[in-house]
Amino acid sequence: MTAPTRDDKFSFGLWTVGWAGRDPFGDATRPPLDPVAAVHRLAELGAYGVTFHDDDLVPSGAPAAERERRVARFRAALAETGLVVPMMTTNLFTHPVFKDGGLTSNDRAVRRFALRKVLRNVELAAELGATTYVMWGGREGSEYDPAKDVKAALDRYREAVDLLTAFVSERGYPIRFALEPKPNEPRGDILLPTIGHALAFIAGLERPELVGVNPEVGHEQMAGLNVVHGVAQALWHSKLFHIDLNGQRGIKFDQDLVFGHGDLMSAFSLVDLLEHGGPGGGPAYEGPRHFDFKPSRTEDADGVWASAAANMRTYLLLKERARAFRADPEVQEALTHARVPDLRVPTLAPGEGYDDLLAAGDDADPVELGERGCGFVRLNQLAVEHLMGAR
Amino acid sequence: MTAPTRDDKFSFGLWTVGWAGRDPFGDATRPPLDPVAAVHRLAELGAYGVTFHDDDLVPSGAPAAERERRVARFRAALAETGLVVPMMTTNLFTHPVFKDGGLTSNDRAVRRFALRKVLRNVELAAELGATTYVMWGGREGSEYDPAKDVKAALDRYREAVDLLTAFVSERGYPIRFALEPKPNEPRGDILLPTIGHALAFIAGLERPELVGVNPEVGHEQMAGLNVVHGVAQALWHSKLFHIDLNGQRGIKFDQDLVFGHGDLMSAFSLVDLLEHGGPGGGPAYEGPRHFDFKPSRTEDADGVWASAAANMRTYLLLKERARAFRADPEVQEALTHARVPDLRVPTLAPGEGYDDLLAAGDDADPVELGERGCGFVRLNQLAVEHLMGAR
Amino acid sequence: MTAPTRDDKFSFGLWTVGWAGRDPFGDATRPPLDPVAAVHRLAELGAYGVTFHDDDLVPSGAPAAERERRVARFRAALAETGLVVPMMTTNLFTHPVFKDGGLTSNDRAVRRFALRKVLRNVELAAELGATTYVMWGGREGSEYDPAKDVKAALDRYREAVDLLTAFVSERGYPIRFALEPKPNEPRGDILLPTIGHALAFIAGLERPELVGVNPEVGHEQMAGLNVVHGVAQALWHSKLFHIDLNGQRGIKFDQDLVFGHGDLMSAFSLVDLLEHGGPGGGPAYEGPRHFDFKPSRTEDADGVWASAAANMRTYLLLKERARAFRADPEVQEALTHARVPDLRVPTLAPGEGYDDLLAAGDDADPVELGERGCGFVRLNQLAVEHLMGAR
Amino acid sequence: MTAPTRDDKFSFGLWTVGWAGRDPFGDATRPPLDPVAAVHRLAELGAYGVTFHDDDLVPSGAPAAERERRVARFRAALAETGLVVPMMTTNLFTHPVFKDGGLTSNDRAVRRFALRKVLRNVELAAELGATTYVMWGGREGSEYDPAKDVKAALDRYREAVDLLTAFVSERGYPIRFALEPKPNEPRGDILLPTIGHALAFIAGLERPELVGVNPEVGHEQMAGLNVVHGVAQALWHSKLFHIDLNGQRGIKFDQDLVFGHGDLMSAFSLVDLLEHGGPGGGPAYEGPRHFDFKPSRTEDADGVWASAAANMRTYLLLKERARAFRADPEVQEALTHARVPDLRVPTLAPGEGYDDLLAAGDDADPVELGERGCGFVRLNQLAVEHLMGAR
Repeated sequence: MTAPTRDDKFSFGLWTVGWAGRDPFGDATRPPLDPVAAVHRLAELGAYGVTFHDDDLVPSGAPAAERERRVARFRAALAETGLVVPMMTTNLFTHPVFKDGGLTSNDRAVRRFALRKVLRNVELAAELGATTYVMWGGREGSEYDPAKDVKAALDRYREAVDLLTAFVSERGYPIRFALEPKPNEPRGDILLPTIGHALAFIAGLERPELVGVNPEVGHEQMAGLNVVHGVAQALWHSKLFHIDLNGQRGIKFDQDLVFGHGDLMSAFSLVDLLEHGGPGGGPAYEGPRHFDFKPSRTEDADGVWASAAANMRTYLLLKERARAFRADPEVQEALTHARVPDLRVPTLAPGEGYDDLLAAGDDADPVELGERGCGFVRLNQLAVEHLMGAR
Repeated sequence: MTAPTRDDKFSFGLWTVGWAGRDPFGDATRPPLDPVAAVHRLAELGAYGVTFHDDDLVPSGAPAAERERRVARFRAALAETGLVVPMMTTNLFTHPVFKDGGLTSNDRAVRRFALRKVLRNVELAAELGATTYVMWGGREGSEYDPAKDVKAALDRYREAVDLLTAFVSERGYPIRFALEPKPNEPRGDILLPTIGHALAFIAGLERPELVGVNPEVGHEQMAGLNVVHGVAQALWHSKLFHIDLNGQRGIKFDQDLVFGHGDLMSAFSLVDLLEHGGPGGGPAYEGPRHFDFKPSRTEDADGVWASAAANMRTYLLLKERARAFRADPEVQEALTHARVPDLRVPTLAPGEGYDDLLAAGDDADPVELGERGCGFVRLNQLAVEHLMGAR
Repeated sequence: MTAPTRDDKFSFGLWTVGWAGRDPFGDATRPPLDPVAAVHRLAELGAYGVTFHDDDLVPSGAPAAERERRVARFRAALAETGLVVPMMTTNLFTHPVFKDGGLTSNDRAVRRFALRKVLRNVELAAELGATTYVMWGGREGSEYDPAKDVKAALDRYREAVDLLTAFVSERGYPIRFALEPKPNEPRGDILLPTIGHALAFIAGLERPELVGVNPEVGHEQMAGLNVVHGVAQALWHSKLFHIDLNGQRGIKFDQDLVFGHGDLMSAFSLVDLLEHGGPGGGPAYEGPRHFDFKPSRTEDADGVWASAAANMRTYLLLKERARAFRADPEVQEALTHARVPDLRVPTLAPGEGYDDLLAAGDDADPVELGERGCGFVRLNQLAVEHLMGAR
Repeated sequence: MTAPTRDDKFSFGLWTVGWAGRDPFGDATRPPLDPVAAVHRLAELGAYGVTFHDDDLVPSGAPAAERERRVARFRAALAETGLVVPMMTTNLFTHPVFKDGGLTSNDRAVRRFALRKVLRNVELAAELGATTYVMWGGREGSEYDPAKDVKAALDRYREAVDLLTAFVSERGYPIRFALEPKPNEPRGDILLPTIGHALAFIAGLERPELVGVNPEVGHEQMAGLNVVHGVAQALWHSKLFHIDLNGQRGIKFDQDLVFGHGDLMSAFSLVDLLEHGGPGGGPAYEGPRHFDFKPSRTEDADGVWASAAANMRTYLLLKERARAFRADPEVQEALTHARVPDLRVPTLAPGEGYDDLLAAGDDADPVELGERGCGFVRLNQLAVEHLMGAR
């Protein structure tokens, strides 16, 4: 297997390799990481892009000159390395002002503050050439049902997103928004908790064509949901605008492990979907393969970079395994036996309506149909063996 | 507290009180229950409606004469008792033919069989005056990612629902469909696993106005989601066409306990939302309060009816507690202090755009804003105490 | 209901009311709280005890003089208020040195450092009159299976606890240890993850009589386990040495809500067990009712104290409800009908052995036995109604 | 890789390959399987043993002659194939009589019936040469806290197990018992829900040496627990008497998938523990590798046997991968760097006591110690790559 190249479109958030290891029960275990150093190191490792929250680059509330100085240094590093900024996002969660949410805080003054923070950062995103703007509403939610009028909150959320799409649309910025769902943490319950809820919300917006989703592997798994199914539904709605790859070991706190260090079988299926789920078996998704992980708190700087590299290496290995899986004639035979391709055939014949269907009589005896073996376990075993490099 | 009356709009599925207690590890503990006897007993207990799957009333594959005889007896019982049939649904899960799904089975012959089964039963629903037709796709899903092309499955699901809405629309049946989400069980992963996924799917249908959701309390809780948030989002999309009330104790197998015997605090908030979440504090939902529960397998016939009665009694108690909660001046003060009503105020002033917002300057110092206490715990404690009848 | 009194034995950790609101995604929302102020306020609210980690009182690594000054101020506050220190514990999780655990870190130097830290703090505990020393091994665990030799880790854990029990035993300190289980967070998987695992570990120690458990409501619920069952098993082993009361809404990150703000029905059963689960229906546990909660990050100082008070008020309300439940003749009849008291009757008659049992023949027809209704739902409904103050 | 041989000690329950596919929402999809046919087919596939519940072989309540006839046929099949019966168990869950449990039913007559059923079947186990007798108490539990006196239930459980160990001990049967924990399903909460709870219970028995555990992979994972940690703790207590291998995809209903079709990474670690977790890197467990899985309901007879074979093939592949992992010098170096072997070194020096430890002074600066990188992610990545056959 060859090393990652820019064609692989691997990107990382500054907050990932830059995470200092502070968790709810412990202090930071690593010193801060200079964003410029991060850019250089990521470029060396084979990444093509870097992403960030406003506050990752410029501390919240920094004076304009400081902001400009930091942005300039960062742009210089991009220029030197050739790294791009495919995506940007706003930090609406760290500062105490956001303790009850940003765009849906009960406090209107907070909502206005938050919306301004996003608008300003969207301008920077446009300047830096980002084409995707992620919105993770980690603080939009509640711990206590009586304390949040959810219907009003969704009104405010819509108001905000409609304003933002008007903004990019009227300013002519080539930016689309991607909502990132999460079921809980840091709030007890977060609004738009899954891919599904976000897709439903988008359908009711003023400019739905400008808004899609940014699913995160671990976030769906925190609700016990099948992330591959969720991403497939997002693709079905043509709404997979971005994706956050990482690892999670079941329903618990957000772990942000290296991609593949969680449910490996699901990671295999996800790569298979992204790479071979499109028309004709080609890629179903062409955007960045973005890793939103946290190098474990136990690691030092060497461990941080080993972790970053592990994400890319695992992705490439899974891609290779998925390619072999799809190319294996025995797999193709097993897929046919399991009637997987037949699901693409419409249930009704061309021109057939319900009256025809009712009149047609039963095509087959249900008892007989029920006796047909599906052969799903054999197919899955073939996948497991391909994943293990055993075929 | 008075006994349940028909105005309370309580309804029960035949399969609920009729559940014989067969579970994955055990045989039935109760004899079958005659649907006619169920109708009479439910009427005595104060229910206004009864609902059913086709197979609950007429065994799958019964000859036409047998079918008519059973329907006639059932109609007579309805006439005698005054019970209505507000909702009907199809059993697409018990027969082995549906082992890989009904409308999204990989096997086209199965899909055609399933679709015919639904069409025929929709006709019966129209005859019996049902206005809601529930679709629970419990077998639409997979255990193994490679065995199901999810995008194709969603195509077939849409094809089916579009055909069904054409059917009722062209036939002039005053029927709307309600999709019932569930994350898993009996399939490893079920398609449209949550309220959100179902709402998103609906938005892409041909006649979205004819399709809504039928959330089930326990199903959302099986994904660790806040069912009150989910129902609120369904209401926000004007898609709460029906509701299944029951109890669940956390993320595990589907328990179908009595309403209130699961997460009682959430049940309180849900009743509060249904009864006081509408405009002006009135009901946000006017349809049946449908109990989709299973009397525990440990119960005999007496226990079955005690269980049925417990659902209604708990609902009425919660309604009373929620009314007192909303009427309490201290609660109203606490809501105001927590700025709950302020979330209904648009973030932008009338006529204000993003340029105005950016120009307006910060309305308030973020540090100061962040120091404001929200008073959410006090508000929640008031709710707990009202729920406990302690105020 | 009367206000809490010292006889209620309510205690709070300094780290609970003193939590500043820093979470994995956000900065502190409240200023630090002076331990002396906390002592005074807790006393006013009706608490009888205060507990703490070494670092809550004296920052890690503070010089001896500073340590003494802080301890002296704290003792003065105890003397003024009459508050006692029933329990103390060590912070083996905040400092980066503990990133791979304290007593079971892979690094022997860390293990020695940790053990010394505990020993020194046990001395302070003895000085302050604490009789319970809690050990929460939040960092004892792993994210990655190959990185932790679990059997070796349990050897080291046992070595440490055996040393500690030798220490208090030989020094004559009247202190017992209580292990506090938790399944995960901050580690991916924590050793001794549940009450059961801790009880099993204790049975293999050198001085098992000096070691028990300190179950935390939310910790068991984070594994989807019934905390009432777990506490009952701890009582059955005579190992409930201390208890941490709080609230959790299902399987997710550790919420540390107010007691009763999670699963209210379970809180009712737990209070019922503690207060009426002993011989003759009296208390099954006589120790402190210790609240290990975090005032939500949305709260200011007023909210902090309202939260503290809410814990005690909810406990007292539940105690009142449980008393009424046990005293209700209809409940007693329902318990008898459900054969709950019969479970205390040995299965074998006095003197009966297996040969007698086999020879006795079947006492009853299994079919008939299987038809007996248990009446459990009715009994539970009575509990729900008592909990709601509706009887 | 070679085919499975008897030396691999693979065994299967009759109820696994014989599962007809009846689930809570669906009827059987496969005809019953003759136990004799199962024995022959399992032998052909390479298994060495077969296990069963009494009712798997002889229907509950069958007359003595029928029972003998069936046992004789079965013994003949064993003789023909050379298959052994390493383990047997009792069905205390299918019949309605067990709806509130067997050994801990509230009904004493049921408890006596259950205990007799076990005693009689233990005699058969002895006749057939089984040396392990599994006790899965799937119905020992409750849905409602007030309906079960847990402490009394544990008394009755202990009474039963003590009687059984007296029985085998006094009769001279070379049989040991293995308790199989499960958190829930079919009961809302099951007693002794995890490996830990069972180990604790065992420590309080009359003949603890005769009782161990039979952990099931999926059962621990249904509580979100790390099954590798749990099995390691069982080994640490010398209580791993038997093991049930299968697959589960997170916290949900009991899936009983093929081993490796759930969390593959965890399956790798588990095989590594069993095969290389003993002294000197040899096997830590020498007993049967027992597969307790259910061939998915979608499968026909071919699928059933493909599923059975898949369990063994996956185990052997994982064993091969684990062997390569342990043999890889880079892995050995990474383990050393991660200080994994150092955890086997006692924290105290030989002869050192707490006074020495306190006097020794700090061996190292905690700040410096905290800066040491653990290298855990790199180690885990090596495991992932070995699992994928990529090294």
